[in-house]
Amino acid sequence: MSASLSDDSLSTHIETMMVEQNPRGMQHLYAKQETGTYLRAAKSLHHAQGTVLIGTGFAVNNTFETDGPVGAIALYKVLEKLGKQPILVTGNPLYSALKNDFNCFELPINSIENARTFSIKALEQLKPDCVLSIERPGLNKHQRYYNMRGIDISEHCGCFDFFITEAPCPTIAIGDGGNEIGMGNLAQHMQALNITPCITPCDELLLADVSNWAAYGLIAFLSRWHHTDLLADIEPLNILNYLSERGSVDGVTHKNELTEDGLHAMHGQQLITRLRQLGGFTTENEV
Amino acid sequence: MSASLSDDSLSTHIETMMVEQNPRGMQHLYAKQETGTYLRAAKSLHHAQGTVLIGTGFAVNNTFETDGPVGAIALYKVLEKLGKQPILVTGNPLYSALKNDFNCFELPINSIENARTFSIKALEQLKPDCVLSIERPGLNKHQRYYNMRGIDISEHCGCFDFFITEAPCPTIAIGDGGNEIGMGNLAQHMQALNITPCITPCDELLLADVSNWAAYGLIAFLSRWHHTDLLADIEPLNILNYLSERGSVDGVTHKNELTEDGLHAMHGQQLITRLRQLGGFTTENEV
Repeated sequence: MSASLSDDSLSTHIETMMVEQNPRGMQHLYAKQETGTYLRAAKSLHHAQGTVLIGTGFAVNNTFETDGPVGAIALYKVLEKLGKQPILVTGNPLYSALKNDFNCFELPINSIENARTFSIKALEQLKPDCVLSIERPGLNKHQRYYNMRGIDISEHCGCFDFFITEAPCPTIAIGDGGNEIGMGNLAQHMQALNITPCITPCDELLLADVSNWAAYGLIAFLSRWHHTDLLADIEPLNILNYLSERGSVDGVTHKNELTEDGLHAMHGQQLITRLRQLGGFTTENEV
Repeated sequence: MSASLSDDSLSTHIETMMVEQNPRGMQHLYAKQETGTYLRAAKSLHHAQGTVLIGTGFAVNNTFETDGPVGAIALYKVLEKLGKQPILVTGNPLYSALKNDFNCFELPINSIENARTFSIKALEQLKPDCVLSIERPGLNKHQRYYNMRGIDISEHCGCFDFFITEAPCPTIAIGDGGNEIGMGNLAQHMQALNITPCITPCDELLLADVSNWAAYGLIAFLSRWHHTDLLADIEPLNILNYLSERGSVDGVTHKNELTEDGLHAMHGQQLITRLRQLGGFTTENEV
């Protein structure tokens, strides 16, 4: 029955699921969006035949948090399986942690002043068909990066903002707090949230309770259009293990744990199960 | 009768008057604002005891347009009369045109990269109690300045954006098209307008059909609170004459004419008359 949902209905279902726990107030922002965000974003990914840039990595105490890279890696593997050329774009220390296992492009750290020129050159070189940001710190009105606690972390961050704003192709950005790239689309609605909003906009902004989860929502659409259960092979706990071995910390607890924004990996896994059911790939009994 | 209007009602009257001709779609944006914009902005000016920075000047073909400086000069004169210390902040050629007659602060041209640091230092030096921008080009998502025709005019512009975003005091910004400083507050609502929006926000954004006119709306409140007809001495045609002698052009026609955005000075003068009537300073017969 679920498989007979229209694309539009599937998108609305996914959008609602993505913000249902609402730990950081994303339901409030979702109410300001035009529905269909996940569908429109997934179409851009689907139509990208060649290179897809996936920017990720949020600096925490000289290392990186688990939220962002888990979804980025899940999406990378799916896009690769579909014959596209994904590239993870990130700065150190995450870049060094990933570069042996994935096609990566390095962002220089702490160079906001040169970032626009650098990004334009990189885009000319990489020629992406789609650029996606998942849980990247975004420039605020002070042209700085603040974390969710309001601390200026600019000197530890690379700048991916201009990869989004200067891209000659569709752009997607995923966030769960308000200070991530793409939140410029809704910056004026953040008075109620205790955050200095990012003002960098994007073509399609995807909201989620945990940014990693938005990647699963996009993959649900790719599964549908390829008639293939692409979510079946994704094991968030395995990816968390991989990242933890390389020094990741949870963005909320700041501990090296197998969690995302303070939530056990089980939550992401459950969401994947529900997305597969929604897509008609499994029944409740099979799981 | 009009004088018995509450401050809130006066503000709503003024806000509606300011966008009633709607040549560039500001009614559409006004519908997205919380009412009371002119009242809240006027209070910030009223409470500023010392220095008030007034940024103005929009580059057109190596000179400057009439919209912006007329209102800036009108406001400057009123603030001076009220014992405050206004300073006009602008780049060349407007800076050189005004510096002999007004207290001015010069913005360097074409230096976006250094603008944030420059602005923070300038704010420390000038210690403003309020910062106001009237028809200043605002940075868009490409970190560039575009005019209303979509042409990149960055190399001819100084950067006032960070005077607004880094100010340690209330900030006000006035615009009439979407590409001016402050429009970041409404950037997400500009899809319907044929403009690349400015993403720089401000505390209080004032919309007007012609930016100069917003200054008269603010002065109407100062008149009320000082029980003084401060609009009586303002002659837009005289200020236009003064600017025209110094090389100004109309921002729409690009000709050195005594007009603002293609509109005869009479329109601004009529608005002043109506604001004085609304404030109870004149009756219809007196004018």
